[in-house]
Amino acid sequence: MSISALMSANQTLIAAGLADAIAVLPSQPARLRDAMHYSLTQGGKRIRPQLVYLTGNMLGACQQDLTPLAVAVECIHAYSLVHDDLPAMDDDDLRRGKPTCHIAFDEATAILAGDALQTLAFDTLLNATLSPASDPQRIDVIRHLSAAAGFAGMCGGQAMDLDATDKHISLDALATLHRKKTGALIRAAVLMPAVLTKQPEPVLDALHQFADSLGLAFQVQDDILDITSDTETLGKPQGSDLENHKSTYPALLGLAGAEAHAQQLFDQALHALDALPYNTQQLKEFAGLLINRNN
Amino acid sequence: MSISALMSANQTLIAAGLADAIAVLPSQPARLRDAMHYSLTQGGKRIRPQLVYLTGNMLGACQQDLTPLAVAVECIHAYSLVHDDLPAMDDDDLRRGKPTCHIAFDEATAILAGDALQTLAFDTLLNATLSPASDPQRIDVIRHLSAAAGFAGMCGGQAMDLDATDKHISLDALATLHRKKTGALIRAAVLMPAVLTKQPEPVLDALHQFADSLGLAFQVQDDILDITSDTETLGKPQGSDLENHKSTYPALLGLAGAEAHAQQLFDQALHALDALPYNTQQLKEFAGLLINRNN
Repeated sequence: MSISALMSANQTLIAAGLADAIAVLPSQPARLRDAMHYSLTQGGKRIRPQLVYLTGNMLGACQQDLTPLAVAVECIHAYSLVHDDLPAMDDDDLRRGKPTCHIAFDEATAILAGDALQTLAFDTLLNATLSPASDPQRIDVIRHLSAAAGFAGMCGGQAMDLDATDKHISLDALATLHRKKTGALIRAAVLMPAVLTKQPEPVLDALHQFADSLGLAFQVQDDILDITSDTETLGKPQGSDLENHKSTYPALLGLAGAEAHAQQLFDQALHALDALPYNTQQLKEFAGLLINRNN
Repeated sequence: MSISALMSANQTLIAAGLADAIAVLPSQPARLRDAMHYSLTQGGKRIRPQLVYLTGNMLGACQQDLTPLAVAVECIHAYSLVHDDLPAMDDDDLRRGKPTCHIAFDEATAILAGDALQTLAFDTLLNATLSPASDPQRIDVIRHLSAAAGFAGMCGGQAMDLDATDKHISLDALATLHRKKTGALIRAAVLMPAVLTKQPEPVLDALHQFADSLGLAFQVQDDILDITSDTETLGKPQGSDLENHKSTYPALLGLAGAEAHAQQLFDQALHALDALPYNTQQLKEFAGLLINRNN
């Protein structure tokens, strides 16, 4: 199957998984339920679920075991977007060209929808029927998600991002921030299927390396697109980093320097995969698409 | 040991447990870490941790296994207070007589501190060294917390509370709201030690009944105190329910009716404990203190 056909099949799986996660919730309170549904179904690239499926398939995981992992990581991602968009945070009215949750609903509902989506991520993994049905693996999977989502991961990264607004920060500090803010969840998406299938330490290390480099490459590319793309293609205001006085790779390295850095990180990601005793072709092609994307 | 001496000993355990939970976090980002620490250490009655210890002791749980449960349930409670106090929600500047998190820090930090405290609750249970060391019990414990915290529990209850503002709602609707908003976490505090120690179904049922009645009695008493107490004793503005146009038990039943209802629920709670083959004295005394409290 071509990578695009595979990604399209995965999109169908993740859409169904997310719909199911909402469908089993009680019908009331309806407004909060609608806000959660809205926040989970506004499209997007579904990078983290794609990584769950592609990595899991490569490692020989049972396909149906991967959906709860994909749903859980996307719930965490979706909740973080809902909260990051709030007026007190990035104050964004649009996300992927559509009203953000607090605009489509209201601020209180958006705060609660984010909160409940975080819990839903854990709930999904706690209650999933996993075919190896091995509790230690389930706990290990949830541990990875929890570590990635919390203070030492995504939440801490978002706080660092807020702290860095209007400040000049070093390249190292910028990398640390992004390793936490976006990198941690990308690493979790790759490592969750790996611990589910009880991979040995060298495989976990190589996948960690891959995901770490890919996550950072993705962010550098994000910063580049904020300058070189346009609002319609991005689905959010072009130039918003500059507008929001955020430190970016192009600001620190220049545009050409940032592009070279993205390429270097991408090469590191591919190199890490070479250490694996698996067919890494699909993961490599997916990584290539991420780096060459235009939105 | 008298109930007050026991509660005081438990307060020491929970304070140490909460301090440890923060102490193991990375030192950066410091502002977010400080906000999490602040939100966890502003005192309060620690009702949920007390219920964890008292129930766990009654059931013969290992004392040191109970601290992670107590910490986790208090992290969820603390995060919910931080978010509920936000301007877009209840907009409270004071909590227990001290500035709320978004006043002491800022709104963005308060949102993130709440988010990270929720994750910390799960992290604590996922990484706790539990002496029975049995993974199925650990998963069961976390499942109870997750179900209590999410859409079907606390978050859903808070959304119902927001929906009910400025509306007349029925006694049944008010009970449903409180069973979710505050009751779910009180039930989890009682049931987590019960599933940790693998109690049989009848014991779980009786404890569920106890916690359900106690949680509702607590809330009725809360509504009563909002009318009959004063701002200094409460540590929050007296009359804030009326001010915020919230449906309350005294509004629906009158003050005397609400007091009778609280007593009836309290009796139901004690009655549920009588079904247990354990020494329920401490739980009964604790329940009595909750119902006869003045703040």
